[in-house]
Amino acid sequence: MGIRKHGALGDGAGQVAAATHPPATVPDGLMDAFWAYESALTDNDLDALDRLFAPGPTTLRGDANGLLVGHDRISAFRHARGGGPRRRIVEVHVQPIDMSHALVVAVTEFAHGGRGLQTQLWKRTPAGWAVTAAHVAQPAPALDTRIWRVVGDPLIPATGAGPLSGHSLAVKDLYAVAGHRIGAGNPAFLAAAPIQPRHAAAVEALLAAGADLRGIARTDEFAYSLAGTNVHTGTPPNPKAPHRISGGSTSGSASAVSLGHATIGLGTDTGGSIRVPAAYQGLFGFRPTHGSVSTAGLLPLAPSFDTVGWLTRDALLLAAVGDVLLPDSAVRPFGEVVVVPELLALAQPDVAAAVETRVGGWAPRESWDLPDLPAWLTAFQTLQAWEAWQAHGGWLATRLHTLGADVRGRFEAASDVGEDDAAQAAEQVAAARIRIRELVGDRLLVLPSASSVAPPLGQVPPEVRQATMQLTCLAGIGGLPSVSIPTTTADGLPCGVCLVASPGRDRDLLHLTAELPTVSVRPWLRDG
Amino acid sequence: MGIRKHGALGDGAGQVAAATHPPATVPDGLMDAFWAYESALTDNDLDALDRLFAPGPTTLRGDANGLLVGHDRISAFRHARGGGPRRRIVEVHVQPIDMSHALVVAVTEFAHGGRGLQTQLWKRTPAGWAVTAAHVAQPAPALDTRIWRVVGDPLIPATGAGPLSGHSLAVKDLYAVAGHRIGAGNPAFLAAAPIQPRHAAAVEALLAAGADLRGIARTDEFAYSLAGTNVHTGTPPNPKAPHRISGGSTSGSASAVSLGHATIGLGTDTGGSIRVPAAYQGLFGFRPTHGSVSTAGLLPLAPSFDTVGWLTRDALLLAAVGDVLLPDSAVRPFGEVVVVPELLALAQPDVAAAVETRVGGWAPRESWDLPDLPAWLTAFQTLQAWEAWQAHGGWLATRLHTLGADVRGRFEAASDVGEDDAAQAAEQVAAARIRIRELVGDRLLVLPSASSVAPPLGQVPPEVRQATMQLTCLAGIGGLPSVSIPTTTADGLPCGVCLVASPGRDRDLLHLTAELPTVSVRPWLRDG
Repeated sequence: MGIRKHGALGDGAGQVAAATHPPATVPDGLMDAFWAYESALTDNDLDALDRLFAPGPTTLRGDANGLLVGHDRISAFRHARGGGPRRRIVEVHVQPIDMSHALVVAVTEFAHGGRGLQTQLWKRTPAGWAVTAAHVAQPAPALDTRIWRVVGDPLIPATGAGPLSGHSLAVKDLYAVAGHRIGAGNPAFLAAAPIQPRHAAAVEALLAAGADLRGIARTDEFAYSLAGTNVHTGTPPNPKAPHRISGGSTSGSASAVSLGHATIGLGTDTGGSIRVPAAYQGLFGFRPTHGSVSTAGLLPLAPSFDTVGWLTRDALLLAAVGDVLLPDSAVRPFGEVVVVPELLALAQPDVAAAVETRVGGWAPRESWDLPDLPAWLTAFQTLQAWEAWQAHGGWLATRLHTLGADVRGRFEAASDVGEDDAAQAAEQVAAARIRIRELVGDRLLVLPSASSVAPPLGQVPPEVRQATMQLTCLAGIGGLPSVSIPTTTADGLPCGVCLVASPGRDRDLLHLTAELPTVSVRPWLRDG
Repeated sequence: MGIRKHGALGDGAGQVAAATHPPATVPDGLMDAFWAYESALTDNDLDALDRLFAPGPTTLRGDANGLLVGHDRISAFRHARGGGPRRRIVEVHVQPIDMSHALVVAVTEFAHGGRGLQTQLWKRTPAGWAVTAAHVAQPAPALDTRIWRVVGDPLIPATGAGPLSGHSLAVKDLYAVAGHRIGAGNPAFLAAAPIQPRHAAAVEALLAAGADLRGIARTDEFAYSLAGTNVHTGTPPNPKAPHRISGGSTSGSASAVSLGHATIGLGTDTGGSIRVPAAYQGLFGFRPTHGSVSTAGLLPLAPSFDTVGWLTRDALLLAAVGDVLLPDSAVRPFGEVVVVPELLALAQPDVAAAVETRVGGWAPRESWDLPDLPAWLTAFQTLQAWEAWQAHGGWLATRLHTLGADVRGRFEAASDVGEDDAAQAAEQVAAARIRIRELVGDRLLVLPSASSVAPPLGQVPPEVRQATMQLTCLAGIGGLPSVSIPTTTADGLPCGVCLVASPGRDRDLLHLTAELPTVSVRPWLRDG
């Protein structure tokens, strides 16, 4: 029942007829429908494509970006993409099942090079033959430019043997890597950037501890976003939440770790840029006590809040990186965990429920009266904006047009922040820092890492961003170490449980995370 | 009829049961077979896997490396690979067709990161449920390390605008690229190599003409092979001839061009290292007149024969690169084409037939008495070996153990070539050069680019290599420009038609190639 045909190389797209052997076994009209589908793809005839895919919620279409379920989602995907790459069919295999069903497997050849594979289950419906399931594979590009600017095997080898030997590092494009430029997610900045003579301190330390440097990973422009949607290079994929944003600004490093391209994602967290992609992608992420890990060789965003952070798929490795980068300290257990209903309530119900499930019914709730939280966030954002303009305004003043709309808007607003506004914001931040540190005390604060699961590709709703930043700014303002631990909503989407501790308790937090069971927080406490 | 289940993240591999909704529509025993297959994969239980794939020649299994047709080839593939990567199932969708057929689409999640997709058509046979077709997709790696050592977006941007603007360059890892080391396909050599302060002359010229440098591509060790089977980094894929070797030594550049990772593959041709991968992969490849393109910044193999060569998917681009790299010359048409039956006879029948078909019945045959061809090849190989040891013996003398067996054997033999042997070989080569140039005259010699299609992965049969080298050494010894033009055997596999011209007629050869029709050589001659 197998049927095979090699197309001659000189054939044009869609010109290869399927040889049928034995012809009688191929159901009537099937091959006509197959070739009609090919033509419709070539012409990007959306109506014909919609018609040739079976209606209903169970129709499937999968490719490297994930599986789409239901005719409507498949149709929406096709309407958004503006046509597929040009290709032709070079082999067709038909497995007839009965007069109304057949599987067609085709080898495709792309005009831009390489071959792919397409598997389709066809069904005869009252309206004619239609695909009920399609699996489409195209050749992978040299590198996924949504994730990476440059990548190697390795790009830079480890300079020593140590606890990170065998691991690989995705470095956010804000860190100096000797022999390379810093691109900061902006092509104009990259083109003007000097080649770095030496590695950033954190990069140097990780290489010395045995990690190979796999590559330089994408970032939101100047790290001034939590979305990961770089207008120049696209949104890195989120494998556990397909067709949703990656989270940022440590977007490329996060996707690299999610996909297994690297085991350690080095990034930064100013206002949530480690914790948000960790939550959205189901990774472990760590933001250290402000000032505890050297930022030498790091392009600043807002030095009052900037931290060196990292992401992994594994809590033990998260701690191992901390052992390399953090100052020494004696490990001691935490005395108390606290869950604050007012903070849980900032998250959407699915995420709040997932955090509660992860925490269990046991951890004590403590109501915090946080009337000033919106004002704290505003002060944080004002001071961040001021510092960001201090850092980049000189270069950006004549180059705001090179930025994507979101980041441009933020920098334009930043350019309007006056010195007095900044001074007042700094005072508010200092007061809030004291208050947040008092509230947390020597306890372990549990809150959602972000207010939602990863939003679908497209604009992030402003209220979602605002709620996420109210959650993330607590550690940012407090200068507190925090870890994001992956969990899952009832729908199976990744989200994060964030643990925040008092300053300097970074290693305690990491070691506790490495010993966490997968079900409840109860055993987190040694003396609880 | 769709069925869907998200596995909770804490579930182990194979522990997610498929929810069936409505349960009655899933044929009896199907899901048991599906999970039995998963278990067999996890355990690499080859007997169970063989049993769960339907017997016979029409069973299909496809992945990014190509489509395998027939149970036997699928079974052989599984026996050779030693187990797949660890994974678990996170979503299962079943499309029941009848009581004996169903499609199962599953989303997989890999222990090393990322998600994949698997589509299986299951059939109830007398021996139980079995897969008749499977399409398997895994997440792509950060870079295909069989093809690339380092790759970027771009790695090095063009330094000018020109005829190659918009094109991208894969550079064989024998050329100096400023800021990078030369690796020569050998990890020990790479580790000891200095960072290059400037680009090789050919790289510099191509960047200035507008091409971006995409990356540094794999080569056989020290370019001393025609296979492409680097023992350290594997064999680059050959998309038009899956599960066959790439050809070498310009293996990575060739695969990069085949896959559309780059549009121009820069390589070298000493004894066929451009023409052989061009033939095996269905590309255009060019070897210039010896000495006509600067080899400054190129790691030598055998300077008497080394040339800068290039590969493209398109004859116009092949010529455009020549316009950048070659000395100026007035274009004039060729007077005569000659096909030599004794050279055609060196190729296997499928390749000889494909060359004859491409040439057409028209081009004149001319019998050449070539009793000395084997001796010419031996002299070529002896001088090549002597020069290769002069170039690399100092470094390799204590490091032969770092080489793969084939290349090691060649260098060991090279270390035994005495100065007298080399001098005698040089005399024979000089005499042969005169004779070959006389035979070709001002005509266009047509011969097979290689003696066979790409051999299947594994050892290249020595007689195939020997016959190929008898064909390729003619241009090598003659120092003659030659182009390999892609064609196809009756089985649909790529092979090459080689045109060889007299010294200095490089541009004529390229311009003629760019104007070739796809069917016959007749219109090649302006005055014919």
